[in-house]
Amino acid sequence: MTLAVRYTAARTLDTAPAEPRSPGPGEVELAPAYVGICGTDLHIFHGDMDARVDTPAVLGHEMSGRVVRVGPGVEGWRPGDAVTVMPLRWDDSCPACRAGHRHICQHLDFIGIDSPGAMQQRWTVPAATLVRLPETLPLDRAALVEPTAVAVHDVGRAGVRADEKVVVVGGGPVGVLIALVARAAGADVRVVEISAHRRLLAEESGLTAWDPTAVDVPELVRQWTEDAGADVAFEVSGAAAGVDTAVEVLGVRARLCLVAIHPKPREISLHRFFWRELTLVGARLYDRTDFERAVALVADGTVPAERLISKVVPLIEAPSAFEALEGGGDVMKILVDCGNDTEEART
Amino acid sequence: MTLAVRYTAARTLDTAPAEPRSPGPGEVELAPAYVGICGTDLHIFHGDMDARVDTPAVLGHEMSGRVVRVGPGVEGWRPGDAVTVMPLRWDDSCPACRAGHRHICQHLDFIGIDSPGAMQQRWTVPAATLVRLPETLPLDRAALVEPTAVAVHDVGRAGVRADEKVVVVGGGPVGVLIALVARAAGADVRVVEISAHRRLLAEESGLTAWDPTAVDVPELVRQWTEDAGADVAFEVSGAAAGVDTAVEVLGVRARLCLVAIHPKPREISLHRFFWRELTLVGARLYDRTDFERAVALVADGTVPAERLISKVVPLIEAPSAFEALEGGGDVMKILVDCGNDTEEART
Ligand SMILES: [Zn+2]
Ligand SMILES: [Zn+2]
Repeated sequence: MTLAVRYTAARTLDTAPAEPRSPGPGEVELAPAYVGICGTDLHIFHGDMDARVDTPAVLGHEMSGRVVRVGPGVEGWRPGDAVTVMPLRWDDSCPACRAGHRHICQHLDFIGIDSPGAMQQRWTVPAATLVRLPETLPLDRAALVEPTAVAVHDVGRAGVRADEKVVVVGGGPVGVLIALVARAAGADVRVVEISAHRRLLAEESGLTAWDPTAVDVPELVRQWTEDAGADVAFEVSGAAAGVDTAVEVLGVRARLCLVAIHPKPREISLHRFFWRELTLVGARLYDRTDFERAVALVADGTVPAERLISKVVPLIEAPSAFEALEGGGDVMKILVDCGNDTEEART
Repeated sequence: MTLAVRYTAARTLDTAPAEPRSPGPGEVELAPAYVGICGTDLHIFHGDMDARVDTPAVLGHEMSGRVVRVGPGVEGWRPGDAVTVMPLRWDDSCPACRAGHRHICQHLDFIGIDSPGAMQQRWTVPAATLVRLPETLPLDRAALVEPTAVAVHDVGRAGVRADEKVVVVGGGPVGVLIALVARAAGADVRVVEISAHRRLLAEESGLTAWDPTAVDVPELVRQWTEDAGADVAFEVSGAAAGVDTAVEVLGVRARLCLVAIHPKPREISLHRFFWRELTLVGARLYDRTDFERAVALVADGTVPAERLISKVVPLIEAPSAFEALEGGGDVMKILVDCGNDTEEART
């Protein structure tokens, strides 16, 4: 018998025994090693997504692990292989899929939200979702691949080029990853973040971070860009003030990449978009190319994943970790250790 | 002595004698033939732009006419040449100009707003602003070149391609011109417009127009696109409801081109931009390439300018034409006849 972390009702998680499901045709059974707790998982925990989530729900979609068993017809994978999962299943028939944008399929199954996730000791998924990890990459760091793939996708959607000046509004895990990926693309980057702890972490990764409660961010951008304004801004804060800052710092023909979720409509200065011929680009999830690039960036240390991991908790303590995260505090990324990162799992 | 139409105070225009100004070095003196009345001219007339406009101000920037005299050092132009004017003067030194986007220069002089316009019998402008008109193009139609250049610019900013499905929200002069230019690019176009008169004019030009007060526009778009949504929407209405409609009709990865001026911030569903990976593109004015393309489209009849001209009034009646336009009613484009479109002006 194996254990799973389950969301049962608003603000309620438990750990309970779960029967592993034998991999069917085209499926693979995995032993998750580490699973990151993401903002979306917290939204589910708050009860904000009860309309979408069937309870009891196993959460988790930022993961690393190893193959345990492969189902009939699966080729190219064998037990012990180190993997992460691109947690998307599409219908291959809707207009989005037909246009080649399967990651935003109109009937997308996001595994870990719409179907059972990785926060358990055995997890059966379609082989098509697997992404190979290099054997040299420690599995705890590899749990950062999924949010890094988000960042790679966002930087790609914004079309960041070398020598461009980029402002990232919001310095949580995704914001810092966007900043690191943009810097790897040759951009000059500033992070705007209210938490002193997160600014410190960003700066330890070699980024420059500004406190919007202490400095005049638009004025600093004017000085930094010699009045030209930034080429790109990423809105990763989810706050109304973050949107305003991101719009205000942009120069003519600049791009605003919208990463954060804003459940309610926001007031936007459309006049500024008109006057400066700005572009707003929505960015969601990732595709396989983004994922493979993310594996490379985490593996080669461009993304210093070890610095962004604040804490690793055993699976049995995941419920209390969610409660602690709710309180905010000095934290970046928390991983759940599923107890599977053992020597014998490798072979 | 020649006459000029002057804005002197909110809701007050007069016609008054004006001394022609001799063309200085690099300048040309024109005899304006026809000048279109534009939405911006109406805003000035309402007094909405008093902070920007020095009174008395000569309005008008949609014009056709002929060269009367050329100043020292002007080459390539001679008296009698038929021309329109791209009414922009930039500083060539600000960050926008240095980046090659001179039409959105941070210190742009828009001639006809920031400096004297065309609604007069003699008008002196930099030779660099002239755009040649074919002798075969009647000058009344040629007054539609400037708004057509706006439409060309907007369609270019939106990147409209052949076979795309395009919704134009707002069927005034600019909206209809965008629809015609998009159709010329091979797109399938629908115009959304509340005025029955304007819908009729759009349909007489071979366009399909929908009344948003009578039909469910998003539902019609779903049927038309087989649930895929439109590829491009243009927001030309300036209304909050227009923005909502334009966002709602778009399919995944679609583009919303923002043409209308929204002086106040608008509430926008950023979640929809995120979820469908939409793009919002601001578009303002035009460059010389847009203007030259617009001349060709008006000259070859792709833009049936004669259908869009509701009325031509003599210069002396321009003040009452502004008052009539304020009342709305069944009107598309009104031209002011400066009395210069005579046989002798040609030679
Ligand atoms: Zn699909
Ligand atoms: Zn300039």
